[in-house]
Amino acid sequence: MKIINGGVCAAQGFLAGGVHCGIRKNRTKRDLALIYSTAPASAAAVYTTNLVKGAPLTVTKRHLANGRAQAILCNSGNANTCNANGIEIAEQMSELTAAALGLSPDDIVVASTGVIGQPLDIAPIRSGIAPLVASLSEQGGREAAEAIMTTDTVVKEIAVEFTVGGKTCRIGGIAKGSGMIHPNMATMLVFITTDAAVSPAMLELALRTDIAGTFNMISVDGDTSTNDMVTVLANGAAGNPTITAEGDDFSEFMKALNTVNIHLCRMIAGDGEGATKLLECRVSGAPSASVAKTVAKSVVCSSLLKAAMFGADANWGRVLCAIGYSGADVDIAGISVAFESEAGSVEVCRGGAGIPFSEELAKQVLQKKEIVIAVGLHNGSEEATAWGCDLTYDYVRINGDYRT
Amino acid sequence: MKIINGGVCAAQGFLAGGVHCGIRKNRTKRDLALIYSTAPASAAAVYTTNLVKGAPLTVTKRHLANGRAQAILCNSGNANTCNANGIEIAEQMSELTAAALGLSPDDIVVASTGVIGQPLDIAPIRSGIAPLVASLSEQGGREAAEAIMTTDTVVKEIAVEFTVGGKTCRIGGIAKGSGMIHPNMATMLVFITTDAAVSPAMLELALRTDIAGTFNMISVDGDTSTNDMVTVLANGAAGNPTITAEGDDFSEFMKALNTVNIHLCRMIAGDGEGATKLLECRVSGAPSASVAKTVAKSVVCSSLLKAAMFGADANWGRVLCAIGYSGADVDIAGISVAFESEAGSVEVCRGGAGIPFSEELAKQVLQKKEIVIAVGLHNGSEEATAWGCDLTYDYVRINGDYRT
Repeated sequence: MKIINGGVCAAQGFLAGGVHCGIRKNRTKRDLALIYSTAPASAAAVYTTNLVKGAPLTVTKRHLANGRAQAILCNSGNANTCNANGIEIAEQMSELTAAALGLSPDDIVVASTGVIGQPLDIAPIRSGIAPLVASLSEQGGREAAEAIMTTDTVVKEIAVEFTVGGKTCRIGGIAKGSGMIHPNMATMLVFITTDAAVSPAMLELALRTDIAGTFNMISVDGDTSTNDMVTVLANGAAGNPTITAEGDDFSEFMKALNTVNIHLCRMIAGDGEGATKLLECRVSGAPSASVAKTVAKSVVCSSLLKAAMFGADANWGRVLCAIGYSGADVDIAGISVAFESEAGSVEVCRGGAGIPFSEELAKQVLQKKEIVIAVGLHNGSEEATAWGCDLTYDYVRINGDYRT
Repeated sequence: MKIINGGVCAAQGFLAGGVHCGIRKNRTKRDLALIYSTAPASAAAVYTTNLVKGAPLTVTKRHLANGRAQAILCNSGNANTCNANGIEIAEQMSELTAAALGLSPDDIVVASTGVIGQPLDIAPIRSGIAPLVASLSEQGGREAAEAIMTTDTVVKEIAVEFTVGGKTCRIGGIAKGSGMIHPNMATMLVFITTDAAVSPAMLELALRTDIAGTFNMISVDGDTSTNDMVTVLANGAAGNPTITAEGDDFSEFMKALNTVNIHLCRMIAGDGEGATKLLECRVSGAPSASVAKTVAKSVVCSSLLKAAMFGADANWGRVLCAIGYSGADVDIAGISVAFESEAGSVEVCRGGAGIPFSEELAKQVLQKKEIVIAVGLHNGSEEATAWGCDLTYDYVRINGDYRT
């Protein structure tokens, strides 16, 4: 497996594009993205668990009932959520896209991201579809990735090449996600494309299995979005024997999917609203995978720890505190904690109590951009990793006046 | 019932004091508090549900097994938590206090608050006990309240006078709490004194019942402290017939206790670390009390909403979002939301969707110091209130470098 360029266009038979259609006032910001598979594709998706769901999710769920799709339309600048006419608008988005591409509306995945509770005007989308379709190209992955950004500060895309059944396949993805992100509630917006041939059922299984250890393990602020969605399209252009059951081919596909998803997870967490640092909590020695996950997530979700990491303060008591209230049944007296980064590693707690450590080294370790909080439970062999970010002045600034 | 002065010394037979003994470097900050009942008292307490528990909680639990206590010793500046010798130190604190007051060590409640995981030196406490006992007076409630403060910016105390069985009784309390505060996990540090005569069992019942709607309904940052504790001492000096069962007398006592606790809750939430505003979420029309509570707590816990309130941004979509992921089974399509303060009231959402409103009025409403977020579920008659605060730059500043 190797990392390649192209994002969602790395896989054969996928075109993408992104334009400014006018949903956003800033004319230099693209706000409408399209991903198109030249052939019909297997499709699977997971959605937010928030009871308040964006209208596009309802419409997409309906369209994906047959496990097939051929295009993804996504706007930024407005979430089309909590609007009386939301479903109608989402359906219109599908119909406009379908008409322009010569598809059926139920082949379209629609997604929206942005402010909740403001009516979404169809006019700019209607006039934007033609130029958007005209912009489709094999080089358009980055434009699509740009068009789905909201408070994101970096474009998030990745692709890898791998082999299934003797055929070279590719899988790539783009993501939008910066605030309103929390574990175990589906995710943010992620669109993944692959030219591997995978049946809809196995694509669904692959996605559901993988997100448990990837997108469900990241948190920026504990707020679960209403519009989260991860969608995968698999168009089979690579020509491998279609994956219809578990086995070696499925395992290879899972590995590639996992590589793409871990990469996007780290990019999303590291680009959390206002974040200056990526936090990675690695829990080992757990009696069960569930305990490991619960502990890892609780640590990366702690506002107090996140603020301490911003300040490069080795306040490990907050790690123990977060473990203690996680709800996981752990033996506190067995816990060890170390902070790690490219500057080194410093153990700060052993047997549930503090140990002497160099504050100077700890400061150096915590001043890096990527911090690992290594928690040892010393009571088993299960592991889990969760990703988050520090809590900063800028998170407050960004969210203190988001609508304007 | 009327509000009176005196805090924890308002009730007859209670003395209090607070000194600087040297746990904190800042010599102008009191760091050791003592509350003393001149007669043996019924005692009850509730504790944090965090598995990581401060050593003082373990020792206090043991001492209160007989339902009696006569003094409370509390230090700030160090939580005496996650230290190998924590229990030993907490026992020594009890013994020193008992010796100085001529009591048995198991009549002492001990509490600590401050940094986790740094050994607590007994030396300053040993040398501080004599001056602390010498400082005890009926006017010392405020000094005690000052001595338990950590990042608190205001002293938190209250007392009320009420009548039970024809006798005038008093109940008062002090609280410490600013960060690491979250609902449903006991609370921060609260010490309550009353001269009403109440049996230990009824005192315990009163406290457990009341905190469900008071201290368990406040959140500052979602982090549950390791050292939370609420303790009540009832010394019977008012001469009322001892309350030993439910009935009118117990109801009167409950009302007074509730008044004290609500007042302290509001002070704690309003003085949340870095907070500029008190947020009060009032949920009405719920199908059950449990749904009402779950919704109210989820709203005041949302980082995104808290940041929006800091910015006086009427981003009501975040209220709906927080309700949606609360876990409560609610009909989103029935929800109404209004923002209220002394500047007026502005309805922003009805039937789960946005309605036109004056942004100007909303801004005025949200610029006040106390904001009510009124949520109507329109699906029953149960209600609940939760308290929180806005999320500000200062929360990050305070917690980015807490240990130094």
